Amino acid sequence: MSRAPGRKQENNKISRELFVLTYGALVAQLCKDFEKDEDVNICLDRMGYDIGIRLIDDFLARSAVKKCRSYSETTDMIAQVAFKMYLGVTASVNCCSAAGNEFSLILDKNPLVDFVEELPAERASLCYCNLLCGVIRGALEMVHLAAEVTFLRDRLKGDAVTEIGITFLRKAEDKKNKRN
Amino acid sequence: MSRAPGRKQENNKISRELFVLTYGALVAQLCKDFEKDEDVNICLDRMGYDIGIRLIDDFLARSAVKKCRSYSETTDMIAQVAFKMYLGVTASVNCCSAAGNEFSLILDKNPLVDFVEELPAERASLCYCNLLCGVIRGALEMVHLAAEVTFLRDRLKGDAVTEIGITFLRKAEDKKNKRN
Repeated sequence: MSRAPGRKQENNKISRELFVLTYGALVAQLCKDFEKDEDVNICLDRMGYDIGIRLIDDFLARSAVKKCRSYSETTDMIAQVAFKMYLGVTASVNCCSAAGNEFSLILDKNPLVDFVEELPAERASLCYCNLLCGVIRGALEMVHLAAEVTFLRDRLKGDAVTEIGITFLRKAEDKKNKRN
Repeated sequence: MSRAPGRKQENNKISRELFVLTYGALVAQLCKDFEKDEDVNICLDRMGYDIGIRLIDDFLARSAVKKCRSYSETTDMIAQVAFKMYLGVTASVNCCSAAGNEFSLILDKNPLVDFVEELPAERASLCYCNLLCGVIRGALEMVHLAAEVTFLRDRLKGDAVTEIGITFLRKAEDKKNKRN
C-alpha cells in the first residue's frame, strides 16, 4: 500500500528539460506568428487559461485539498502546493493590499526559463512565461474566483526575482450579492 | 549522500499533465498556422529536432551511459533509458530489417496523448506526436548517427499501439569511408 502513491506520482512526472524546451518552441512559434509582443502575451495567456480550466480537476483530485476559506489561503495553496506539483518549485507569497485581495507570488527560481539567457532586444515587452498567468487565472475561475493575473517582475527583464501578481476581483460583487 | 541524487532527480521533474496540455496548445497553434497536416508534421519534426540537439547533452550527463556499440544498443537506450527519463514510460524494441539498421519503438502507452480523444476528421494525416520523432532524430545526429524517424502506427489513428520507426542511415556511407 505504501508504495502505490509514490509510483503513481512518479508516473505523473516527466522531465523538466523536455517541457522547458517544448515551451520554448511554443513561444518561438508565437513570436513568428505575431509581430507585436502584446499579441504573443495575450495568446500565451489565453492558451494558459484553456490549460488551467482543465488542470484544476487534476489538481483537486491529486492534492485532495480542502476548500480554501480566504484569498490568502488560496494564494498559499497555489504557491506551495500547485507550483510544487506542476513545476517542482514553490513560491513565496506577499500580500500587497490592505483590502486583502491583492497578492504576489515570488519565484526565486523559474524553471520555465532554464534555457533562456535573455529576451532579444526586439522582444523587450514579451512576457515569456505568460502561460503561467493564464493557467492560474483559468484554474481560479473554475473554483469561482475571478482574478487578474499578471507578471509584476521578471528576471528575464533584469529584475532580481520573478513576481506574479494576483488580484481577486469578486469582493465588490460578493458584497452586492449578499445585499440582494 | 544517498538522498542527494533522489532530490536532484525530483527537481528535474514536472507534472506530465502540464506538459501534455502545453504540447496540445502547441499542436493546436500549428494547426491554426498551417492548413496542410503535412506542414504541421514537418514543423513539429523540426521543432523536435531543435530540442533533440539540445537535450542530448542533458541526457548524456544525467544518464551517464557508455558509448553504444551497435544500432541495436542505441535503440534499446532510447527505448529503456531516454523514454523513461523524459516521458516516464518505456518502449519495447523491434528489429525490422535483416541489415540491422531498422528498428521500431512500440509504446503501449503514449503520455503525450493523455487528453486527446481522437484526431478531428479534417486532420486525419496529422502526426500529433511528431515532435518526438524530431527529438530522437536531433539527439541521434549529435552523437553522429543520421537516422530517419517516423511514426509507423498511431493509436490516435485507430492502430492498436503507437510505433515509431528508426532507420539508421550511415551504413553505406560508413563502408565507403572505411574503403577510402
